[in-house]
Amino acid sequence: MIQKLLAEAFGTAMLLIGVVGSGIMGAALADGNTAIALLANAIATGCMLYVIITVLGPISGAHFNPAVTLAFFLRGEINTSLAVAYIPTQIFGGILGVWATHFMFDLSIFQTSQTLHRTGVAQWGSEAIATFGLLFVIFGGLRSKPDAVPTLVAIYITGAYWFTSSTSFANPAVTIARGFSDTFAGIYPGHIAAFIVVQILTVFVAHAAFKTLFTTTKM
Amino acid sequence: MIQKLLAEAFGTAMLLIGVVGSGIMGAALADGNTAIALLANAIATGCMLYVIITVLGPISGAHFNPAVTLAFFLRGEINTSLAVAYIPTQIFGGILGVWATHFMFDLSIFQTSQTLHRTGVAQWGSEAIATFGLLFVIFGGLRSKPDAVPTLVAIYITGAYWFTSSTSFANPAVTIARGFSDTFAGIYPGHIAAFIVVQILTVFVAHAAFKTLFTTTKM
Amino acid sequence: MIQKLLAEAFGTAMLLIGVVGSGIMGAALADGNTAIALLANAIATGCMLYVIITVLGPISGAHFNPAVTLAFFLRGEINTSLAVAYIPTQIFGGILGVWATHFMFDLSIFQTSQTLHRTGVAQWGSEAIATFGLLFVIFGGLRSKPDAVPTLVAIYITGAYWFTSSTSFANPAVTIARGFSDTFAGIYPGHIAAFIVVQILTVFVAHAAFKTLFTTTKM
Amino acid sequence: MIQKLLAEAFGTAMLLIGVVGSGIMGAALADGNTAIALLANAIATGCMLYVIITVLGPISGAHFNPAVTLAFFLRGEINTSLAVAYIPTQIFGGILGVWATHFMFDLSIFQTSQTLHRTGVAQWGSEAIATFGLLFVIFGGLRSKPDAVPTLVAIYITGAYWFTSSTSFANPAVTIARGFSDTFAGIYPGHIAAFIVVQILTVFVAHAAFKTLFTTTKM
Repeated sequence: MIQKLLAEAFGTAMLLIGVVGSGIMGAALADGNTAIALLANAIATGCMLYVIITVLGPISGAHFNPAVTLAFFLRGEINTSLAVAYIPTQIFGGILGVWATHFMFDLSIFQTSQTLHRTGVAQWGSEAIATFGLLFVIFGGLRSKPDAVPTLVAIYITGAYWFTSSTSFANPAVTIARGFSDTFAGIYPGHIAAFIVVQILTVFVAHAAFKTLFTTTKM
Repeated sequence: MIQKLLAEAFGTAMLLIGVVGSGIMGAALADGNTAIALLANAIATGCMLYVIITVLGPISGAHFNPAVTLAFFLRGEINTSLAVAYIPTQIFGGILGVWATHFMFDLSIFQTSQTLHRTGVAQWGSEAIATFGLLFVIFGGLRSKPDAVPTLVAIYITGAYWFTSSTSFANPAVTIARGFSDTFAGIYPGHIAAFIVVQILTVFVAHAAFKTLFTTTKM
Repeated sequence: MIQKLLAEAFGTAMLLIGVVGSGIMGAALADGNTAIALLANAIATGCMLYVIITVLGPISGAHFNPAVTLAFFLRGEINTSLAVAYIPTQIFGGILGVWATHFMFDLSIFQTSQTLHRTGVAQWGSEAIATFGLLFVIFGGLRSKPDAVPTLVAIYITGAYWFTSSTSFANPAVTIARGFSDTFAGIYPGHIAAFIVVQILTVFVAHAAFKTLFTTTKM
Repeated sequence: MIQKLLAEAFGTAMLLIGVVGSGIMGAALADGNTAIALLANAIATGCMLYVIITVLGPISGAHFNPAVTLAFFLRGEINTSLAVAYIPTQIFGGILGVWATHFMFDLSIFQTSQTLHRTGVAQWGSEAIATFGLLFVIFGGLRSKPDAVPTLVAIYITGAYWFTSSTSFANPAVTIARGFSDTFAGIYPGHIAAFIVVQILTVFVAHAAFKTLFTTTKM
């Protein structure tokens, strides 16, 4: 179990390095053209997701996301004590990743985001769709083509940076950790709770929905 | 059959979220540089196509496109009642996807496109080539490397956004749904019918052509 | 044999649609930023290469390139009459592809390129390296991982648009066909012969070199 | 052994052509927008890594990197004489690749970089994380999904250009060779030694760490 927790902490730290680091680099170089910064951000995040899920999947399941851990728990595919241990580990790893990124980019290690636009009904709807889609590719992918799950998640999130208005946080650990960075990828701490509520509620909706769409018998 | 229709509706809705959402985001951030907006649009669309075809292929065949359903019907690989049910389901799903996108981006839900340049002989020729190429990768891919079909379609469309002048609608359901969005990906409703006529005619041409190029005996 | 020739003609036409079409679109939208145009051009070309090689490989071998046909001939892996038939077919298909592209983009069908910078020792050295690298990924790939050859060629050329100064024509049929387009991807007809001479000479060099690097015995 | 050394020299030369060539092309075309130049640079480097590792992996192991050779040596998976021969071969190949690139782009062959910002604690921390991550994807990938290692390395480095502040040299041979180019990818020679020290120290740290994370027994 120590090994699994190490994998979840390390993987989530790497994920945040991917998200926050590429956001900083993109914003610094894009000369005010936010689309180019977001393109780099989306591609780098997808790259990181592919490598951490491929490498750590066989060790911990490669959740790196309390919403995913909750979804596996609802399906009875992870036991209670492991699920309970995973969630704070992911949050802790994510925050460490943000701090490591600040160190690499020679910024103050401890920050609080002042990014204020990540709130409101449209953003929350976006997070609901983003999270639903993420669970769709994970659980639908596990059913249709398990080997492709790392690619599915990476490719889905790369696209979702663009087709959702919130750029698809879809992950409570990532949401909390991004509150600790006043950079491109940041989210104002006062707006974090609502994002997480939407993400968690969506887990329950998705869990119910996939019983219909993905029946247990192989077609 | 309900499950197949749910998959077609959901998949086509997701496809339109991918197309229209990334178009809105790209146009909003690209600071007037349409090439960057289209690059994001093309990449996000390819990402979405890869995930929905991979996940839903084993359930419904992952058509999400009346032209593809018609092509399978002409080959005798889908029965009449299913084909007849698929087509309105795809159109309905596509429109729902557009509306969900407007909701996410805090826009009026109900819109009508005013994009006027998607007409004329060159655009129609572009749609003919785009649709022919799409059927080529689907049916040629099913013959040469069936496992690669989700990748083939996604990669083909990502490229075709650039190498056809119409950016490759190649899909009557997508064409209709995009009429409901006055954003980057929109098409003026008065220009929809001609696009669909070209797409459908091309299905018949492609069906005939592939009898020569892809003979039934394995080489 | 007719089927193989059809595949070579159609595939080379599609390749030129990919190259020339995305060049036109990129240059039209990039607002003078040539790097964005070339990025779209490189990505779209890689997309097209992946699909045509995957789909048509089992039919014709998916050469689409007289230099590749010559290399297979030197290895004794294609017979003389087929090789002799392939080469003009590829050139013919390529030119048709250029004309189809002009039609899609509402340009004069018949053009002659006025792009004058594709000449000189540095450009020729670039074509030598580009062609050597292409044959390296094809024949090295066939030895190390045959299933990956379509991906290898597509990915190699996408990169080579950037890391060679000539943007890697590496293909006499493509070189000739691009002389027929006075657009982003064009090459002045008076500069075509030197490119082809370099490409052909490199085939002989590469053929000799790979005898050392890729020994016939499996390691 | 000659064949292995040829593969290491040729592969490292190609890697530097990918890195330095795409840097030159990107900077030349990007009209001052460094983000676009870096995006092209990152994509082209990833493309090159994928092809050289896929093709040459079965021949030499496709290290192209003294840090990787050292790591395999610490694991007892490469013998001393081969390791000792690999390292200068990689450096020599890398420098030849830089010179070949200068030739292709019609620049002075022999240059010394004047790029002065690649120094300081933040950059060194970035190299430590970059190198640790590279060894993580290689040795974790060999354990979890060996067939995916070429893709893992290519995708990781494409992302790491963006999420590390140093753009991830993570390779002493590449670091030395880039000292010989006063272009986009250059590094001032006086700053090379510190980068290499960090890279080598990180090999020892990573080697120790992976004993915990990647236990020898298959889970």
